[in-house]
Amino acid sequence: MSKIRIITLLTDFGLRDVYVGVMKGAIAQINPQLTIIDLTHEIPPQNINAGRFCLMTAYPYFPLSTVHIAVVDPGVGSNRRSVAVECANCVLVGPDNGLFSGILSQENAIAAVELTNPKYWLTSQPSNTFHGRDILATVGAHIANGVPLQEFGEAIDPNSLVRSPIPDCIPTTDGVDGYIQYIDYFGNLITNIPGNLVAGKNWTVAIAQAKVDFQSPQHSIIASGKSYSSTEPGNPIALVASHGWVEIAVYGGNAQAFLGIDWGAKVQVKFGNS
Amino acid sequence: MSKIRIITLLTDFGLRDVYVGVMKGAIAQINPQLTIIDLTHEIPPQNINAGRFCLMTAYPYFPLSTVHIAVVDPGVGSNRRSVAVECANCVLVGPDNGLFSGILSQENAIAAVELTNPKYWLTSQPSNTFHGRDILATVGAHIANGVPLQEFGEAIDPNSLVRSPIPDCIPTTDGVDGYIQYIDYFGNLITNIPGNLVAGKNWTVAIAQAKVDFQSPQHSIIASGKSYSSTEPGNPIALVASHGWVEIAVYGGNAQAFLGIDWGAKVQVKFGNS
Amino acid sequence: MSKIRIITLLTDFGLRDVYVGVMKGAIAQINPQLTIIDLTHEIPPQNINAGRFCLMTAYPYFPLSTVHIAVVDPGVGSNRRSVAVECANCVLVGPDNGLFSGILSQENAIAAVELTNPKYWLTSQPSNTFHGRDILATVGAHIANGVPLQEFGEAIDPNSLVRSPIPDCIPTTDGVDGYIQYIDYFGNLITNIPGNLVAGKNWTVAIAQAKVDFQSPQHSIIASGKSYSSTEPGNPIALVASHGWVEIAVYGGNAQAFLGIDWGAKVQVKFGNS
Repeated sequence: MSKIRIITLLTDFGLRDVYVGVMKGAIAQINPQLTIIDLTHEIPPQNINAGRFCLMTAYPYFPLSTVHIAVVDPGVGSNRRSVAVECANCVLVGPDNGLFSGILSQENAIAAVELTNPKYWLTSQPSNTFHGRDILATVGAHIANGVPLQEFGEAIDPNSLVRSPIPDCIPTTDGVDGYIQYIDYFGNLITNIPGNLVAGKNWTVAIAQAKVDFQSPQHSIIASGKSYSSTEPGNPIALVASHGWVEIAVYGGNAQAFLGIDWGAKVQVKFGNS
Repeated sequence: MSKIRIITLLTDFGLRDVYVGVMKGAIAQINPQLTIIDLTHEIPPQNINAGRFCLMTAYPYFPLSTVHIAVVDPGVGSNRRSVAVECANCVLVGPDNGLFSGILSQENAIAAVELTNPKYWLTSQPSNTFHGRDILATVGAHIANGVPLQEFGEAIDPNSLVRSPIPDCIPTTDGVDGYIQYIDYFGNLITNIPGNLVAGKNWTVAIAQAKVDFQSPQHSIIASGKSYSSTEPGNPIALVASHGWVEIAVYGGNAQAFLGIDWGAKVQVKFGNS
Repeated sequence: MSKIRIITLLTDFGLRDVYVGVMKGAIAQINPQLTIIDLTHEIPPQNINAGRFCLMTAYPYFPLSTVHIAVVDPGVGSNRRSVAVECANCVLVGPDNGLFSGILSQENAIAAVELTNPKYWLTSQPSNTFHGRDILATVGAHIANGVPLQEFGEAIDPNSLVRSPIPDCIPTTDGVDGYIQYIDYFGNLITNIPGNLVAGKNWTVAIAQAKVDFQSPQHSIIASGKSYSSTEPGNPIALVASHGWVEIAVYGGNAQAFLGIDWGAKVQVKFGNS
């Protein structure tokens, strides 16, 4: 483990209110020397899929043993579990609602606990609405300080952690079927089809508007290219983008608006057409 | 005092321009090791009430002797005073316009000064429009460095500091009268009635649309509950939220839009109805 | 050089996605003790003029030898150069597209290199779309760590760096001709006419709507004042603002919307009218 531990924060709190600042204050009360890096606080409210994708995309770029605290938590105040999960390369702290399922599809969970020990909470009477402040921030800070995982509560089976609501992509006879797992700030549509499945092949992507199936004439066939500028401005293009997934973009435009596509839409990569 | 001092920043500058970054640069020129935490920079422009509430909500979660620099400053360039105020748990630096009146309703001011000593300014010729950079950031950094308060200017009577424009809540024969003191990112309406005044009681809240008085049939009576989900999705609910104040929310919706209520609207808690 | 090096980041990535967080992770992997300060990440997409102005405005407020990493990069993936430029007071890291031309109009470039040495990249196979992560963040961190500039690639002539697309302002017989070089969050129109050219004079500003020349009756003549409140609320005013340039504002309003003016519009300062 590196001597200096990084904590990252990812939430859907936005930056208008002081919720994020308050979490940082709670962390600084435990150790003002911890470095805190914001991943994003603009996850669309309660969109677990978006938080899941952002965490999965960001975590490989952080130092070993970084502590990722994530709060996209529509079930706060219900009986959903708060958990901490130790992986080979990082530690995860947040609600057990699928938010970490992207990282856990790529990292082995070594150990997991439910956060039931109030000794490491901000208060023994946490609010019903803000576990990010009352439990998760302080637990994350104590983990970064080196407190062992088993101190925070009962061990749980990492295999019992909630999985992603998005089905995995599936290879077909002539391609791969997948889903839109994220839509970024620029309206780019990011599928859950890894770029290595299309490497070295000629391929296109079919994408259907919501409630239109792939037999309908209203779906679109999009050619693939190396970069956004592989097509003319204003035209759609499919490519493997910097995050490593098959993405559908519009050069100089907004693919979500252009194609009328929403989160979770199904896509079909087809090989052999160029 | 802790060895490592935290500085927080709260402004209405937004994050599009470099005003906030420049304040951090001015602080780093004095001491690059100071830790700076953003409370928020999305205070609605010139909304002193919003800044006041956010500071009051956030400050209890920060380490002892944290320096809070706040800039919501419609009077910049006029003859309003710039001040520093030392409290038992924190130090406040900003314009004397009511911004700190929320914290000062909960903390005793030990000493206060007007910031008249140009030795601690960025420049002896401060601009008329950006005291956050030219005076407040550098004074805050010197305070965090340990320079004593009296160095920064003439002592002033803490009781002379500008008070909040929002009247205090008032207990009535059958409840409490109060006001909307803040509207958050989600459209939740936060009153200035402390949660402890309703603890253990059955209660409802009456809230009137702007310019509609409480005798009019157009006001709304809202039931209280333990959490947002104590009502059906789309319905209003009154509760004591994580900040400790009586709040009016719409489960899964926006109470400000739903009820047509604005900053400063009057509310009436009534006991005895369930 | 100060022992503690600051890195600043300026991008057009917005804060919704994790691009900025990922750049900070890449920096922390090299040295978790480097202090990172955000200038802004809300540069309008691909608006090099806006990035150029923000960098020029912010850099004087940072400690000596601060490393400014900037990514507004419409040409990423093309053959545009990535560069590092050492100046007397700072080091610049980013695409060679004019983004640094504002700083370089005020600072002498001591040395410059093209970033061709993959030893200091995140990966020897950088993506076509995210050089901010794959090249610029890690190079900036190594520079802050003290690696000498010549390590990063071939020396280039600082005079060969791309210049600003906005022409310089030009003194005329009775004033100064210039251009709108930036429009801020509040809709204030910031010209490229330095405040010292109007100091001590009576002056007005003429500004024409897009495609309207100065002979047309549709241009506006705006009086100058000391501060926003030198006119009545809702009226335009010209002043030298805290950034040091001649600015056109509307007191309590939005000058861009009020006057119908866009980036790059021509303005004419006239002396002798008061």
